[in-house]
Amino acid sequence: MQWPKYVQLKEVGPRDGLQNEKRWIPTADKVAWINKLSDSGVKEIEYSSFVHPKWIPALSDAREVGRQIKRNPDVFYSALVPNLKGLQHALETGIDGASVFMSASETHNRKNINKSIADTFPVLGQVVHEAKQANKRVTGYVSTVFYCPFEGKITPEQVVRVCEKLFEYGADEISLGDTIGSAVPSQVEQLLEAILSRFPEDKIIMHFHNTRGMAIANIMRSLQYGVSRFDSSVGGLGGCPYAPGAAGNVATNDVLYLLHGLGIDTGIQENKIQEAAFFIQDKLKKELPSKSLAYAVSGRGI
Amino acid sequence: MQWPKYVQLKEVGPRDGLQNEKRWIPTADKVAWINKLSDSGVKEIEYSSFVHPKWIPALSDAREVGRQIKRNPDVFYSALVPNLKGLQHALETGIDGASVFMSASETHNRKNINKSIADTFPVLGQVVHEAKQANKRVTGYVSTVFYCPFEGKITPEQVVRVCEKLFEYGADEISLGDTIGSAVPSQVEQLLEAILSRFPEDKIIMHFHNTRGMAIANIMRSLQYGVSRFDSSVGGLGGCPYAPGAAGNVATNDVLYLLHGLGIDTGIQENKIQEAAFFIQDKLKKELPSKSLAYAVSGRGI
Repeated sequence: MQWPKYVQLKEVGPRDGLQNEKRWIPTADKVAWINKLSDSGVKEIEYSSFVHPKWIPALSDAREVGRQIKRNPDVFYSALVPNLKGLQHALETGIDGASVFMSASETHNRKNINKSIADTFPVLGQVVHEAKQANKRVTGYVSTVFYCPFEGKITPEQVVRVCEKLFEYGADEISLGDTIGSAVPSQVEQLLEAILSRFPEDKIIMHFHNTRGMAIANIMRSLQYGVSRFDSSVGGLGGCPYAPGAAGNVATNDVLYLLHGLGIDTGIQENKIQEAAFFIQDKLKKELPSKSLAYAVSGRGI
Repeated sequence: MQWPKYVQLKEVGPRDGLQNEKRWIPTADKVAWINKLSDSGVKEIEYSSFVHPKWIPALSDAREVGRQIKRNPDVFYSALVPNLKGLQHALETGIDGASVFMSASETHNRKNINKSIADTFPVLGQVVHEAKQANKRVTGYVSTVFYCPFEGKITPEQVVRVCEKLFEYGADEISLGDTIGSAVPSQVEQLLEAILSRFPEDKIIMHFHNTRGMAIANIMRSLQYGVSRFDSSVGGLGGCPYAPGAAGNVATNDVLYLLHGLGIDTGIQENKIQEAAFFIQDKLKKELPSKSLAYAVSGRGI
C-alpha cells in the first residue's frame, strides 16, 4: 500500500468547528485557542468567517480575532469569505488566503447561499478575482460532493463541473466536502478517479465529516490515491447542521493518530493538539467526539 | 479495489459489550435485547460468558439468559468459556459454539488469565478437545494482537505462534483482537500478510475496538485482504477496560453503514440493529459511541 510521505492538514476548528456552536466563546478565548493551535506545528489555520454575523453569530468577532491572534510566520492564516464585502473585511483584518464556498448540489446551494449554482458562479468569480489581485491564495470549498440531504446522490460529474469553473476563475485549490459525512471509501474512489484525471492532486484537499464514523477510512482511501491535503478540526469540533448531536468534522487528533501511525510526517505535535482540544472542550463545556481525545482524557495518554 | 461480496458479522454486544458495564441489566432485559438481535438477520450472537461471576458480575446470569432467549434456527449462538467448568455450564445451558480466549502478549495473558502463555495452552487444549467431543464449533479469541498496554508492540510472529497452537488443538477459527484499539491499517496489513500466508482466510475473524477511531479503516483494510468475518457490538457498546470513557468494540451500526455502502451483503437489517441499540442504550442510561446511531437518534434516520 502506498501513500504520501508528508501530509498537510488545515485546521478548520476555529471556523467550521465553531460556526454551529450555540455557546458563545469570548474573543479572548478564541485568540488564546488559535495561538495554541499556531504553536502546534500545523501549517494552516482557518481562523474565522467573514460571513454576515446574522448568519453565523458564533463568529461575529472575526475582525477582533484576526487582529488579536499572534501570527506565527510558519503558519498560513485563511478565512472564509462569502462575497466582496466579506473579502474586504478579511483583507483589512489580515489574511494569507481567502476561502470561497458553494455546493455541488443545486438545492443545497440555494438553501445555503440563497442563489442557484449558475447565479453563484459570477459572484464567486468576482471574489476570486479580487482576492488574486490582492495576492492572496484562494481556496474553493465545494460542499455536498457525495450526497445532498435534499437531492440525494451527487455524481462526480456534477462536482467536476463546479471545480472546473472555480479553477477557471483562478482558485488555487479546491477542498471537496463530505458535508453530511455520508461517503464510504468506494465513493471516495469514484470521485477521486474523476477529479484526479482532470486536476493535479496537489490542488485537491479532502474535507470529511465523521457523521457516521467513516471519515478515517475515507482519508485512508484518499491517501492511497496520493491526496496529501486534508481539512480537520481539533477534537472533532463542529456539529452537523442537519443532525444535532451527531459528529461533525473529522478530528485532527484522530487524523494525526492515523497519519503518524502510518509513518506519515505532518510536522504537528500530537500533544499540543490534545492540549488545544482540552482547552476548547473546557470552554464549550461539552465532550468533543474525538476518540483519541476521549482516550487521552481517560488518563492513559495516547 | 476488491472485497468480499458477503460478510458475516458476529454480534458480541451481549458478551464483550456488556461485560465491563457497571449498571446491572436485568436478565429479562438481556433476553428481550438478544431476541431483538436474533430477529435482525445477524447470523451469529455471542450471548454471554461462562466465566466465574466473581470476574464478570455483569454476566453472572449467563445460564438464565441462555435458557430464556428464543433460539432462532437461523442464528448460531455461542458463549465465552474460560475452562472445563465453564464449558460444562455452557453445554448444559445450550450453545452452538464455544469461544476460548488467551492473549498474544505474555504479560496481558498473565494479568487477564493469571497464567503464562505456556501454562494456558494445555488448559485451552482440554477445553477445545471437550467442546469438539460435544460437536461444538470452537472459536479461539487471541487478544492484544497489535499492541499490549504492558509490553508495547506485539509482532505478527507472536500472534502466528498462538494461532498455530490453537488450530493444532482443534479450534475451528480464530478471532484476532485489537483489544485496546491501537492499530492503523498498515499494521493490519503486516499482521494479515503473516496470518493469511499460514491459515485460510475463512478461518480468520477480525475483532477491532474503536478506541482511537481507527476501527472502520482497519476493517476496510481487512476486507481488501479478503477477510469476510468480523466481530462487532451493537451501538459500539463495550468500554475499554484500560480507559474508562473511551470507545470499545466497533459499532455494528457503523460497520453495516460501511459494508452496505460498499455493496456488501450481510443479511442484516440496519433498522433492526438501530432499534436494538436504542433499546440497550435506554437500559444503560448512557449514550453509546456509534456515530450512525447518534445520527439516527438526532432524528434524521440513516
